[in-house]
Parts: sequence; C-alpha cells; structure tokens
Amino acid sequence: VSERASGYELYYWTGIPGRGEFVRLAFEDAGVPYVDVARLPEEEGGGDDAVVRAMAGELGGLRPLGPPILKVGRQVIAQTANILAYLGPRLQLCPDEEAGRHAALQHELTVLDLVVEAHDAQHPLGPTLYYEDQKPEARRRAAVFVKQRMPMFLTYFESLLDGRRWLLGRSLSYADLSLFQALEGLAYAFPKSFAKRRIPRLRKLRDAVAARPRIRAYLASERRLPFNEHGLFRHYPELDR
Amino acid sequence: VSERASGYELYYWTGIPGRGEFVRLAFEDAGVPYVDVARLPEEEGGGDDAVVRAMAGELGGLRPLGPPILKVGRQVIAQTANILAYLGPRLQLCPDEEAGRHAALQHELTVLDLVVEAHDAQHPLGPTLYYEDQKPEARRRAAVFVKQRMPMFLTYFESLLDGRRWLLGRSLSYADLSLFQALEGLAYAFPKSFAKRRIPRLRKLRDAVAARPRIRAYLASERRLPFNEHGLFRHYPELDR
Repeated sequence: VSERASGYELYYWTGIPGRGEFVRLAFEDAGVPYVDVARLPEEEGGGDDAVVRAMAGELGGLRPLGPPILKVGRQVIAQTANILAYLGPRLQLCPDEEAGRHAALQHELTVLDLVVEAHDAQHPLGPTLYYEDQKPEARRRAAVFVKQRMPMFLTYFESLLDGRRWLLGRSLSYADLSLFQALEGLAYAFPKSFAKRRIPRLRKLRDAVAARPRIRAYLASERRLPFNEHGLFRHYPELDR
Repeated sequence: VSERASGYELYYWTGIPGRGEFVRLAFEDAGVPYVDVARLPEEEGGGDDAVVRAMAGELGGLRPLGPPILKVGRQVIAQTANILAYLGPRLQLCPDEEAGRHAALQHELTVLDLVVEAHDAQHPLGPTLYYEDQKPEARRRAAVFVKQRMPMFLTYFESLLDGRRWLLGRSLSYADLSLFQALEGLAYAFPKSFAKRRIPRLRKLRDAVAARPRIRAYLASERRLPFNEHGLFRHYPELDR
C-alpha cells in the first residue's frame, strides 16, 4: 500500500474522533499521507483489534497504555501531545527551534487539559462507568464546567490571541489545529453555553482552520468522523444550560 | 543570589508539593541549583504572590495558565511535562537522541495521567469544589479508582520494568523520578489499597530513587514539602478500603 510506504501508521479506535483526531488533523493539514490502520478493511489488518494488538505490544518498542499510537518505521510513539511534539517539526506544524517547539507543546498540553475537563464534566465518577450511571453527578459537575472552567480556559486562549492570528503568532502550529478541534467539540457538546461566550478571536481561529483548503476537503470527506455519544465530547442537552 | 545566576527559577505554590515537586525532583537529583521563587522571603520576591504575578504574565514570554512555571533567562516554560522535556537533556535526565526523548515524555505523560486520576478520585465534581462538598461522590469514584484504575496503571508500569532497572532501561530518567513521586503519593493517599498491590519492581524502583544520595539528602531537608490535605494526593481514610 502506498501510504504504508510513507511510513506513518496511526492506531486509534474506529468509532469516535477522540484523541486520534488531534493527530489526524495534523496529517491532513500537512497533506502528508498516513495509514489510519484500524479503519482499513479487516482483511488488511484493520478493525479495533489492530488497536488492541498495538496496546498488547505487538508493534514492538515501548508498549503503550492506550491509543493514539503512532508507528514510524520501528519507532512506536504514544500519548497525543508526545506524538504531536514528534510530528510538529516534521510536518512543519511548529517551529524547528527549541523555544518554539516547547511553546507549541505547552499550548497543546493546555488544550488537552481543557479536553479532559470537558469529558470529565460528563463522567465525573470516572471513565469506567457509563453516563447513565452518573447522571446526577454529571449534572452538578457540568454546571461548574460551563459556568467556571470552560470560560476560564476560553478566556485564557482568547487573551493569548490578542494581536496574533495563531497561538504562536504568524504561523499555524499543531496546537491551533487541536484548539480548533476542542472548540468544535465544545460547540457540539455544550452548544448553548458555548454560543454565549464572547470569544471573537477564537471564533475567527476556528473559521480560519476550517477554511484551510486541505482541512476543508478533509472535513467534507468520509475520513472525518462525526462526534457522537461514545467519544470525548458528547451532546447531553440536560447538561447544557 | 548565586542560584539566580544559574538561571533556573521555578514558580510554584508554597504550601503543597503538587506538580512543582516533579520539577524539583529533577533539579535535586541532578544536583543543579534552582531558585524556588515563591519560597524565598517576601522581601526577596517570594510568597504565593510570585506565582500569581507569573500567571499574570509578568515574567514575559508566553503567559501560562498555571504553575509550575520555569523561567530560564528570558524563556518562560509551563506545563509540567513540557518543563521536564526541556530540562531532561540539560540535566542528563533523559537521552539526548530523539527516540529516547520521546520515550521519556511518553512515560511522563502516563505518570501524570495517573496523578490526575488519583486527584480526581477525591474530587470527582471538579477542582472548584472542596472535598467536603463532594464526599459521597468521592466515595464512589475512589472505590473505582483503587479497585480498577490504580491497579491498571500500576500493572502497566510494573510490566514495563520487566528486566529493566528504570523505565528507559539502564539509565534513570526524569520519568522515573516522577513515577517515584506518584508512588509516594499513592502510598500517602491510599496506604491500605496501595500496600495490597503486588508490584515488586515498582517498590524496588521507589526504594532505589529514595536511596540516591542527592535525593536522600533532599528528602531529609526542609526543601522537601510533606504531602497534606491541600495538595494533589490527600489522605482521607474513608476513601481507602
């Protein structure tokens, strides 16, 4: 397969955008081919079993605790922010020099902190219980999330964009793509609360990412998985005041 | 001040080990001087206000959302894992080559995932409410944590140490120091549940870190802050079955 020859293999669950999407957006914006292994037909090694096998250590290298997992030649890399720190300079999605690389990683980790809190707002009793088993608790935590935590994060990112088009200034980085995905997720999960926020610079960034030619083509393609009620961001109207 | 001349200034809250401790352990093991700015006398710019000022952007550079914050010359770096990724090669606490650096960062991020879950087990309704306002919820989530999540993480790290002294093999990295701190925290917060785990390699790693001459001296010093009920790891006996 020609994409396999390019050397980038992504392992992530088939049914949700989840954390895999932050990695996909980087490849898609860069226009660099990658194999989304689990989404191959099963006879070509696809299916969620491919992820399970990767988690069992069958790719060699460091055994990862969970996906997303990136295989590049013999190297196996896990943890979303770590994968993006590795890909950033290669895909020209962050500066080559050290200070810029750490600035991008800092922003990425803060975006992912927001993502974790958005998820936890709907699953306060932990990732092993279903939403249905923690509805009253989710109602309490989501109220705090939309009233205090989401605004805190959004106000922070909005302030960083004062006078800048992208988080690092003039050039887009993978952290902008991840911030875009976080904003998309919040707009999906908490549409009413999100619509109320006064965040003109963030809305501009979100539109600017969506309008990039390769991203626009990707979002319209079947490769882009829709949000749903099994993923990181879920729409439970009762949690959105 | 001579430590200021060395160039490393750490900004973190004065009253808890918290996330700042992961950075302190790296400096202490390396024997590299650093200024723990908030713990200086107030007349020398210390106190928690120093952290508040850093969060307000007064250090210049990227304004961080929260501590720990490291200032090195004119560079300001935030996010625990990002700070350690920056310091790792400088303090000889991870390999210089790229694959090794990403392996260390991957482990660090997984250790910090465990730390977040340990904290959230005691604060399921989020970081803005006191423990006293979420005791029944904490009881439910902590039960899942000690029964499923903590064992999952510990079993994972235990398996990585099969045949290796440290996470990356023969040489200690900052991820081992962070894993040590996470184990110390779990032993403090959930002593009964932690004592039950069969994790001989992890206990050996914990003892080996504590026995390193500079770490041993540090742990016995006043620089080492004890765990307490304001930090990441808290001891609530009712949550430890």
